[in-house]
Amino acid sequence: MSRTLHLNAFLMGVGHHEAAWRHPHTDPSRVGDVRHFQELARIAERGTLDSVFLADGLAVGPAVRHNIQAVFEPLTLLAALATATDHIGLIATVSTTYNEPFNTARKFASLDHLSGGRAGWNIVTSAQSREAWNFNLDEHPAHADRYRRAAEFVDVAIKLWDSWEDDALVLDTAAGVFADTDRVHEVGHAGEAFKVRGPLNTPRPPQGRPLLVQAGSSPDGIAFAARYAEAVFTAQQTLADSQAFYAALRRATTAAGRDPDLVKVLPGIAPVIGGTEAEAQALAAELEALIVPEHALAQLSGMTGIDLSGYPLDGPLPDLPDVTSVQAHQSRYQLVVELARRERLTLRQLIGRLGGGRGHRVVAGTPEQIADQIELWFTEGAADGFNVMPPLLPSGLADFVDHVVPLLRARGLFRHEYTGRTLREHYGLPRPASSYATRELVTA
Amino acid sequence: MSRTLHLNAFLMGVGHHEAAWRHPHTDPSRVGDVRHFQELARIAERGTLDSVFLADGLAVGPAVRHNIQAVFEPLTLLAALATATDHIGLIATVSTTYNEPFNTARKFASLDHLSGGRAGWNIVTSAQSREAWNFNLDEHPAHADRYRRAAEFVDVAIKLWDSWEDDALVLDTAAGVFADTDRVHEVGHAGEAFKVRGPLNTPRPPQGRPLLVQAGSSPDGIAFAARYAEAVFTAQQTLADSQAFYAALRRATTAAGRDPDLVKVLPGIAPVIGGTEAEAQALAAELEALIVPEHALAQLSGMTGIDLSGYPLDGPLPDLPDVTSVQAHQSRYQLVVELARRERLTLRQLIGRLGGGRGHRVVAGTPEQIADQIELWFTEGAADGFNVMPPLLPSGLADFVDHVVPLLRARGLFRHEYTGRTLREHYGLPRPASSYATRELVTA
Ligand SMILES: Cc1cc2nc3c(=O)[nH]c(=O)nc-3n(C[C@H](O)[C@H](O)[C@H](O)COP(=O)(O)O)c2cc1C
Ligand SMILES: Cc1cc2nc3c(=O)[nH]c(=O)nc-3n(C[C@H](O)[C@H](O)[C@H](O)COP(=O)(O)O)c2cc1C
Repeated sequence: MSRTLHLNAFLMGVGHHEAAWRHPHTDPSRVGDVRHFQELARIAERGTLDSVFLADGLAVGPAVRHNIQAVFEPLTLLAALATATDHIGLIATVSTTYNEPFNTARKFASLDHLSGGRAGWNIVTSAQSREAWNFNLDEHPAHADRYRRAAEFVDVAIKLWDSWEDDALVLDTAAGVFADTDRVHEVGHAGEAFKVRGPLNTPRPPQGRPLLVQAGSSPDGIAFAARYAEAVFTAQQTLADSQAFYAALRRATTAAGRDPDLVKVLPGIAPVIGGTEAEAQALAAELEALIVPEHALAQLSGMTGIDLSGYPLDGPLPDLPDVTSVQAHQSRYQLVVELARRERLTLRQLIGRLGGGRGHRVVAGTPEQIADQIELWFTEGAADGFNVMPPLLPSGLADFVDHVVPLLRARGLFRHEYTGRTLREHYGLPRPASSYATRELVTA
Repeated sequence: MSRTLHLNAFLMGVGHHEAAWRHPHTDPSRVGDVRHFQELARIAERGTLDSVFLADGLAVGPAVRHNIQAVFEPLTLLAALATATDHIGLIATVSTTYNEPFNTARKFASLDHLSGGRAGWNIVTSAQSREAWNFNLDEHPAHADRYRRAAEFVDVAIKLWDSWEDDALVLDTAAGVFADTDRVHEVGHAGEAFKVRGPLNTPRPPQGRPLLVQAGSSPDGIAFAARYAEAVFTAQQTLADSQAFYAALRRATTAAGRDPDLVKVLPGIAPVIGGTEAEAQALAAELEALIVPEHALAQLSGMTGIDLSGYPLDGPLPDLPDVTSVQAHQSRYQLVVELARRERLTLRQLIGRLGGGRGHRVVAGTPEQIADQIELWFTEGAADGFNVMPPLLPSGLADFVDHVVPLLRARGLFRHEYTGRTLREHYGLPRPASSYATRELVTA
């Protein structure tokens, strides 16, 4: 089959627009109702999307005053969605900075077993500095240190998933042999941050390993993705920027000795859909009018690490330090600064532009116009697919599934039905062999 | 309403008997099938049991060769069961030794939100020394140190659950106020093991706090339970021992300034049910014959911390060190040693006695005989209810629900239908107020 799009439904509360919860089309009380998320997962499955995708954060600050936040922890929520769906992948964001590899590897294995092979892990190093305060630290570890820990963390997790070979579970009732312990391996990891003996306390998951997704687009993030990621979630504002990112990631992947076709690049896209272009623009304007500026400025201050509350809304973004000094979230910082400079935006205009997708690209238009943009990026080397971020939920997801997906199917860009059962199969990615199995073959 | 029994369905693989998976009534391949557990949860709900209960362990050793083990991690499995059931409580075991309080508090809050108030946490400090090796340590922390950490861990978790007052989620769309930040509190914990600023990143869970269950019956365990537990899971072999434990826990609870009626004592019971007593005995004998002795000895070596593999099966348990020197699981060690001495058991007899319930009491008999034993312990001050540990699953649970529960109902000991919606309501326990709300009232 020729190259096809991959589309995830990125779910967040009652919509990705920061003022979604104030809009009459949403019911914010549903943010803590599992049935809301089950409904969203079923809509996404009706659209044969590759996965539902959940972000995460391990702290809240004063911004919670004005904006909806996640009530559910991603892995528990996705376990609940696993039993309400049959095919769709389930991708949870989990930080390597404030977790342990044994517990994390195990939870993803559990989700993969529960869902029959539909688990994916979006690997992040934590975007918010304030998370440190909930985990015994006074300061967020430095950017480079977080990525070094992340690499070792994933090394350990892979060893643990591989520690049970695929056929280790024997279940020989006559002989009383439950597992063939010759095929269950201690992993004996001893590194800079972790010492983990293993094996994992669960048989190898259906996918061998969950799909490894990554988000974090700084140079360190790209280097990490080149080594580990099978899908990369990224925020890109322009075709040219995304093409550059796409090319850079492929070069880095090749340099790391991996096939770049096996790493899918998925920018975020926040589609504001209208029956006509004017309707779409009106919806975008309605949402923008609902933004609480002080909240948006607090968010922007968080992204940039600079307190912007004193600056006039109708003035420009002040001069900011160089990106290399940023310790939290480098790529988002750079994107915001470049966006403001390129389009000479006032602070008010900037927060309006960011409100729809926290830095991700917002496209307002008819279903055809949205499909055109998706096709353009897909065919012009800017994307292998998208994390779809509806401004309002469920309505924006239903609109996408019912009006945009059929166009993408008609153009031969997207599946008409699921052809695989696992998330790896949806992505057209191979099931990895256990590294221990390979080793045994080599020495045999 | 007069005092009534509380019954949890303790689920483990295809049965609690260590050889359950070899018995023709079970299908061991279902140990990794979520539908098996959904079926079990629905059977338990049909019996209006208080909860399903899951144990946990964070390591496997060579014993995995001969015995079935858990495939699923408890919180993800219970999240999947939450959406397959309506009333039954969901109790997960999580160790305070190898987790972080922020992540743990949050996952239980998430499960409580997902299930509409049905989450319970069985707090343990980890029974197996080998878990240390999966978490950067060479040795399991000493018994007393683990309990000290556990107390601080739960202190932090309680502060985090309380950090959002019940009415903090305002959702005032007109004013753009999502949460009333005057009612969302930093917890500012700084103690010996943890420094956690908070608040939690989720609104207060439906039950305020999940039900706090505890397992670990050493003197340190009892002191911990007296301070924190609302239900206590314990292994007791005889009526007299359980009465002594029951009384000791009540005394300690009173001494800790709490109402002992609000702490439910739940011994484990492994009911081997037959239409006649002879049938029940035959099933018990069948199961015992399926035990792999070398496996049982390895298990026993694990429980006692002494390598017993060299000792003759038909000789006595050798002399063992004093319980106070035991660092892993003191109460189980003591129970095993006393059982062997009291009944002058050979090693072979001892492993037969332990095979049915890992030290928990095994009762083989007709439904009437099982109900009699339950009633006796309940009325004679030995138990407020039981963790029911069917030897075979699902058959043993179905037998209990369909044949023993109706007797308990007819005797006025157990509910005919659910009268509450939350796990706390099933247990007749109050919903705790947020400690921050109280403080505000005091200073107002
Ligand atoms: C598109 C995108 C999505 C991200 N999502 C999350 C997230 O959900 N949670 C989180 O803690 N970090 C998230 N991150 C940031 C990662 O934590 C990242 O490891 C860290 O901030 C460094 O990002 P950088 O490589 O762009 O500097 C995201 C990053 C990107 C680019
Ligand atoms: C009835 C019972 C059940 C237990 N279940 C578990 C369990 O599932 N996982 C675990 O790590 N520890 C479990 N424990 C042991 C606890 O980890 C306990 O904190 C530790 O071993 C000390 O036990 P002790 O107080 O009896 O010495 C259990 C203990 C008892 C008495």
